[in-house]
Amino acid sequence: MEKITSRKHPLAAHLKKLGTDSTARYERGEFLCDGIKLLREAVASNCVVTAALTSRDSALPTALPNFPTYVASPEVMEYVSPLKSAQDIIFACKMPELSVPISTEQCVVLDGVQDPGNVGTVLRTAAAFGIDRVLLVGNCADAYNPKTVRATMGAIFRQPVTRVTLEELAALELNLFGAALGADAQPITELNLRGASVAIGSEGRGLSDAVLELCRARVVIPMRQGTESLNAAAAAAILMWEIRK
Amino acid sequence: MEKITSRKHPLAAHLKKLGTDSTARYERGEFLCDGIKLLREAVASNCVVTAALTSRDSALPTALPNFPTYVASPEVMEYVSPLKSAQDIIFACKMPELSVPISTEQCVVLDGVQDPGNVGTVLRTAAAFGIDRVLLVGNCADAYNPKTVRATMGAIFRQPVTRVTLEELAALELNLFGAALGADAQPITELNLRGASVAIGSEGRGLSDAVLELCRARVVIPMRQGTESLNAAAAAAILMWEIRK
Repeated sequence: MEKITSRKHPLAAHLKKLGTDSTARYERGEFLCDGIKLLREAVASNCVVTAALTSRDSALPTALPNFPTYVASPEVMEYVSPLKSAQDIIFACKMPELSVPISTEQCVVLDGVQDPGNVGTVLRTAAAFGIDRVLLVGNCADAYNPKTVRATMGAIFRQPVTRVTLEELAALELNLFGAALGADAQPITELNLRGASVAIGSEGRGLSDAVLELCRARVVIPMRQGTESLNAAAAAAILMWEIRK
Repeated sequence: MEKITSRKHPLAAHLKKLGTDSTARYERGEFLCDGIKLLREAVASNCVVTAALTSRDSALPTALPNFPTYVASPEVMEYVSPLKSAQDIIFACKMPELSVPISTEQCVVLDGVQDPGNVGTVLRTAAAFGIDRVLLVGNCADAYNPKTVRATMGAIFRQPVTRVTLEELAALELNLFGAALGADAQPITELNLRGASVAIGSEGRGLSDAVLELCRARVVIPMRQGTESLNAAAAAAILMWEIRK
């Protein structure tokens, strides 16, 4: 097995770029993952692993499909790793084929949700509840950011997720309800949301006016007075539960 | 206003300790918070702020109650801050009075939930839904860890939360349902959980046998086949929604 000991090795540089540069990710159609758990999930989901680095040969599980594997020095592992302390395995994976969203899908729309942990958790919940597709609009964290990927716990390999423009979102003509505060928001306990799509806004500012205009109504999760908001991923979990149960 | 320029200043050392040492937190009955948002929440919730550091006088809002405030050098701010990039304000706050849990309360039990972000998000959701108390058992992240506090978005100043032993939990004789997979787990769609208490286990291993023994039944959030689990805070959000709605 080839040993990589320099940060300048082309593969080390390539993986580093995938971990830090979202434009490079989409140009190459690849993203960076770390840890044995995610590797097992990628393989179980028939994703194409393009290369793996490991700190020691023995860290790799046996009975994996063939893909190029390299032992890397601790310095290279640390350089490539998106974490402060590198895991034993870092690998690159091909993005699943992008399929175009269709208007008959049940979707969760995230509008400017900037925390990768929140976006990842939403993807994980969406996969658990069989939501057809997560749509990212506005200034959302990238679905293939290593932090997002880690938070999905493997759902990134299975859950359809597509970045769309406002125009593309409008063209889908979804049966869309927007989670928003306000006097005209209807409590979700008073609606039957089964089968609907829902939109969730950013942590700080909620849904943008442009996305609200695409919603047929504003809905609110009833809360105790004096409480302003839920965490975006927690609100999304409750809304996905209500549209799927 | 006194200016603090040395890490060895007693207040800098004290705050650093509150941010990093949970034993010191409980000994002193104080915890560390950062950011102007949390400061406003603390004041609005009538919490006692014991001291604040600021990088510049102008960062402090006017019309705050009196508490000792110090301008600190960037080096001291960075030393004390639990974040890589220090916020403009770091402060210490008295822990709310610990009141003893009682058996008539509706509780959420966290069993070994180790991620401070998850524990904080649960506290935030619990406050939003008016859950009487969050009980932490086993090896949970500390409720007053700065990362937990940040994830609560201020709910830490309002939401009763108590660390309990297994014996104390058992003595409460809660009407407790445990979120757990397994053939004997009942889907929450087939139960009326209103008014019940729920227990949620660790990210990796779920509920401990000891806590499961205190549950009157195991419950499961129905998920798509092949999906193993939800994020602990997302699962907790759905369960709190179901017991409170």
